[in-house]
Formats: sequence, structure tokens, C-alpha cells
Amino acid sequence: MTHPAPHHPARHHQTAAILVIGNEVLSGRTREANAWLAAQNMFACGCRLCEIAVVPDQHDAIVSTLNRLRNSFDAVITSGGIGPTHDDITMEAVADAFAVPLIEHRFIVEAMTARYGADGMNDGRRRMTRVPQGSRLIRCEKTIAPGAHIGNVYVLAGVPDIFASQLDAIIHDFGDRPFHRREIEVKLPESLFAAPLESIQQQFDDVEIGSYPGRCGPDPCGKICLSSQNPDRLQQAFEQVSSMIDTLRD
Amino acid sequence: MTHPAPHHPARHHQTAAILVIGNEVLSGRTREANAWLAAQNMFACGCRLCEIAVVPDQHDAIVSTLNRLRNSFDAVITSGGIGPTHDDITMEAVADAFAVPLIEHRFIVEAMTARYGADGMNDGRRRMTRVPQGSRLIRCEKTIAPGAHIGNVYVLAGVPDIFASQLDAIIHDFGDRPFHRREIEVKLPESLFAAPLESIQQQFDDVEIGSYPGRCGPDPCGKICLSSQNPDRLQQAFEQVSSMIDTLRD
Repeated sequence: MTHPAPHHPARHHQTAAILVIGNEVLSGRTREANAWLAAQNMFACGCRLCEIAVVPDQHDAIVSTLNRLRNSFDAVITSGGIGPTHDDITMEAVADAFAVPLIEHRFIVEAMTARYGADGMNDGRRRMTRVPQGSRLIRCEKTIAPGAHIGNVYVLAGVPDIFASQLDAIIHDFGDRPFHRREIEVKLPESLFAAPLESIQQQFDDVEIGSYPGRCGPDPCGKICLSSQNPDRLQQAFEQVSSMIDTLRD
Repeated sequence: MTHPAPHHPARHHQTAAILVIGNEVLSGRTREANAWLAAQNMFACGCRLCEIAVVPDQHDAIVSTLNRLRNSFDAVITSGGIGPTHDDITMEAVADAFAVPLIEHRFIVEAMTARYGADGMNDGRRRMTRVPQGSRLIRCEKTIAPGAHIGNVYVLAGVPDIFASQLDAIIHDFGDRPFHRREIEVKLPESLFAAPLESIQQQFDDVEIGSYPGRCGPDPCGKICLSSQNPDRLQQAFEQVSSMIDTLRD
């Protein structure tokens, strides 16, 4: 009797959430960029991004949202609030979410002291040496102050180029099978193809099909977007949708 | 004995959340734009935006997130998922969140039938006539298919120019006292001004002060951002921060 090859268990996070911490996004001052970058990376590496949450620089909002998300999904990436100023309270909130103390990390103290000298270690820089007890550090070349990884939570900076660099440093923990995407431009009202599109969707439970109108009204224009972790099935669904749309065009 | 003028109670929503419904945002296909527009509008009209959540086109995720948000804040604006295709499930989810039936609204049926004729009322268009029972319609000039307002929830379209037009139609329900913002460009490391900035923040509990580095490292550049509903206090805080930064520059 032959045995099938053993199933290789998933070692990487299959689902994730992004928690953006920042009044500047909620006040409309800053257009959010980090969750967007992370979303593209999650898709490319094959981890399903299930929620993005943006909350203010408020301790209780961060703690409760982080606990909700980390209990719902395989992993959470946070963005923002790890600098030296009074509004940077993410590390403290993460420590409280995990009910561990916030400690000055010896390696960060040493690295920052080597860079700035003992005299340069003001309260602001001292603040940046603190991480939740038990964290692994997330280092990147863009900054001397690392992010922190504790449990299933990755605490990254909000400054976009630092976030991007730290994300590169952790992305290998996420996903096994990349998602792929195909799009079809359609110059028809959505209501004309809604029914046949739904029947195709029903045949492909491993392909996600969405319809995104760019312009409605008398001169409609939009896109049907298909994505899947299975390239063959994606191609089959793509061909069925393309052929259905071609039929309607005639 | 004279009485003070009666306090005019707030009639408008003071706090709000935005719920974006869309796989296209979570997959990184589309950069979110509607929450960003709404955030700017909320700030300008004086309603505090407390959370932005992005969830997939999944019934249970929409229902649970909407219920959490509408019980936490004065109002919730949703974006997306109200078109004619199979992935447009927001109206049904909102009805379920409120535990009311989804009904074909007579006015929408009449308007769409007048536009498309009885023969043009296919299943897709019929789908767009459905709103949660008890909804008021949110009309705008960009589309014949209205949004819906039920309880403290406003259900808007995801197509950006329709969302913008529908937001214009409801914005008068939000806010009483506009927020104002001032910014100061700073070419110093944040850690140098973190302590004095914190003491200024402690003197101004009605002014929100944030520090946003644009570039870290040897040639730092960033902005200190102050916002408040009280223009006089904002000006006072602005002057104190400016003067503090000038002192450090010398």
C-alpha cells in the first residue's frame, strides 16, 4: 500500500490584519499608505488580509483593537506610534495588550548609545529603547530604532520608508501560495452581466470574482477582477468570464 | 435672577466611524480613497472620526463590524458593495445588522423603471432597488440608485465620484464646530523637542499635538501638527510650539 505524500503543514501566517495607529489619518491630514503597501505584499506572498483598522493615538483604542485582531487572525501588523514623542504610545499599548511589562531593551540601548553618545540619550531616545518584554527586534537599514515582534504581532513604524523596510524584514513569515490576479475591462452596465457572472462565480469557489465600475451612466466602463491562489483555475475562470462578456458585446 | 442662555444641545453627530467594504482594498488592488475623503470632510465639519475599518465582501464580517461600530460611535458611514453584482451584499448585511427585512423600495423601483423601462428591470437592477426596511433614501445627482440611511448608519456607494456626491448629501448631519489645523515644519530630530512638546501638550487639553517625521537620520525633516475646535487656543498653542522650536534652532 502506498501512502500519499505527507501534507506539508502551513508554516506561515495564512490570515492577517493591519492596525494603523494615527490621528493624522483619521483627521484626513495624511492619506494612508502603509496598509496599502502591506495589502499588496500580503497578496503577492499569499497571505489573506482580512481587515484593516485605523484607530487614534489612544491607549484603550489600541489595546482593545489589537486584542480583537490578534485573536481573530494569524498575525497582526501595526503601523505607527513608535517614535520618541508624547503621541507615540504604541509600544506601551502592545505591552498592555499582552499584559507584559515595557522594558528598555539592552541591544537598543547599546546601539543608540554607540550612535548618539551617553549625553545624546535624552528622554525621547530612551523612550525608543523600550519594547514589550519578550519581543524579538525587527531591524532594518532605514533606522537604528527597531520594530518589535511579540506573539503574533509585528510592531512597525509609521514613517513610510521605514515601514516598507521593516515590512521587507518580516514578509518571509507570511503566506505560502501567492495570489494571482487577472482583469477584464468591460464597457457594459454591470446589471447586464451580473447574472452570468454570478453563475461563473458559483462554479469557482477558489477564484474570487469582483466587479468594479469606474464610470456608471450612459457610457459605462469598469473592470471585472479575478484572483486566486490556483493559476490554472484562475485561467479557466478568466476564459469563461471573457467569453461571457464577448457574447454580450455582440 | 437671570438665567444663563440655555445650552444648545448638539444635534449633529459628534463622533463617527467609516466602514469600507471591499476585497479590492484588502487585496491591494485599489488604494482606498473614500475614507480619506470622508476623514477630510469630518474634520472640516467638526465631527471626530474615531475609526476606519476595511472588511471583505463577507456577510458576517460586515454585520459584526457594523454592529460594533454603530454601538460605539454616534454614526457610521459605509462605503461599497451596493451595486448589482453578486459581490454587492452590503444592503443585505445592513438589514441583518438591524434585524429588519430587505425590501424593494417603491420609489427606487419607479425611478429605475422610468429610466430603463419594465423590460430593462433585470435581476441586477432589481437588486439595486432593495434597502433595509425603514431606510430613508440618500439621493444624489451622480446615480439613480440611492444610498440608504437607517438608524445611525449611512450606506453609500464605493465608486469614488458617487461616494463623494452622496457624502455631500449627508454631511449636514455631522459636526457642529469645525476643527482647525496649523503645522510647523521642523528640521530637528524629534527626540530633541519631545520633552518640551509634551509639556506644551499638557497645557492644552483642547488642542491635539502630533509630530510627524517625514525623513529621519542625519538630515531630519518633519512637521508638528496642531488641531483644535477652538481657534484661539489653537493659536496660543501654535505660538508656544513655534517659540519652543525657534529656541532649539538657535
